[in-house]
Amino acid sequence: MARTGRRPGDSGTREAILLAARQRFADAGYRAASIRSIATRAGVDPALVHHYFGTKRDLFATVLQLPIDPDVIVQAVLAGDAVRVGERVVRSFLTVWDEARARDRMLMLLRSAVTDDHVARMMREFVLDTVFGPIARGCSPDEPELRATLAASQLLGFAMVRFVICMEPLASAPHDRLVAAYAPSIQRYLTGDLTARRGTRAALVARPQANG
Amino acid sequence: MARTGRRPGDSGTREAILLAARQRFADAGYRAASIRSIATRAGVDPALVHHYFGTKRDLFATVLQLPIDPDVIVQAVLAGDAVRVGERVVRSFLTVWDEARARDRMLMLLRSAVTDDHVARMMREFVLDTVFGPIARGCSPDEPELRATLAASQLLGFAMVRFVICMEPLASAPHDRLVAAYAPSIQRYLTGDLTARRGTRAALVARPQANG
Repeated sequence: MARTGRRPGDSGTREAILLAARQRFADAGYRAASIRSIATRAGVDPALVHHYFGTKRDLFATVLQLPIDPDVIVQAVLAGDAVRVGERVVRSFLTVWDEARARDRMLMLLRSAVTDDHVARMMREFVLDTVFGPIARGCSPDEPELRATLAASQLLGFAMVRFVICMEPLASAPHDRLVAAYAPSIQRYLTGDLTARRGTRAALVARPQANG
Repeated sequence: MARTGRRPGDSGTREAILLAARQRFADAGYRAASIRSIATRAGVDPALVHHYFGTKRDLFATVLQLPIDPDVIVQAVLAGDAVRVGERVVRSFLTVWDEARARDRMLMLLRSAVTDDHVARMMREFVLDTVFGPIARGCSPDEPELRATLAASQLLGFAMVRFVICMEPLASAPHDRLVAAYAPSIQRYLTGDLTARRGTRAALVARPQANG
């Protein structure tokens, strides 16, 4: 009798589960995406998901593997003119988010991190240890950790507004407009004086004042 | 026989349901928080939740009512020196997030918006129509919608990093440091030249270049 269903040895089964997991995690977030719902979407038995990938946590970590190498991006960002590092960070970020597979994974991470502490920790580590930490340390010896989190906060917020909440006109603004808008902020976070009382002509700032 | 359970007329039942809903929505997000789980937490029958608040969508809208009046904040931000509007926006934002009840509602909105399109639309409308839209229009006649979404992207990202993902040292930075760091960016988004090729000494930017 011919076998028609998928079985453990079938080529493609593993990929089908990974694809289903990626879609479920990206759509529903880590917490709401069950192994059962992933198995259903992949057309396999839940036991097979566990067989290939272990726990939901293990599966998530596997799915999260980015199709890009963060080290390559960090090196590219840090090579070149220091006064344009903000521009290179923004352009690299836009390029990564334009790549469909990378965008799926980032959305998955974002959606899952806001509702699950375990994923939030993974995201913290990924964002700081592999991307913004090395970039900030390469830019300034002065408070690189604060600089890394400031830059991360702007680019995360941008990703939220453009890809998750979809606020126009930002959601469909062309790259050059986004670079012109964001690069000076990222540049200042990475290399500027963060305690400055004066900015550009348009950006006078922060008189000293006690608060909570 | 004495009645011991809660019944529709009990004072406090409505408040108990609202509190439970607020906690569930904030914790699990809109999609994952079921009427049943909210009823369980409130110690009432699910039918009672529907009786008081209608559908889950209706309940969410009720729970979302902020304990602050956005109009008051917008007016306060727009009153005063135009070159310090960025600082006032950041300080107002920090003050609102410091207020426990407001923070719960904002976290609820944030957690729910990333996993549910309906809530994402509510958030879009709230953020743009009642807060950043009016502020941006009060600051500049030049592309106020883009300015509003740029400012929103930075403050949303800040809220994510500080309150949801909890990235240190940003998560526990004092207000004055945050104002010094963010006010110049918000000021530029609201009043600056967004196509500028040159920024502060530390922030040279964006050479013209074609891209996708």
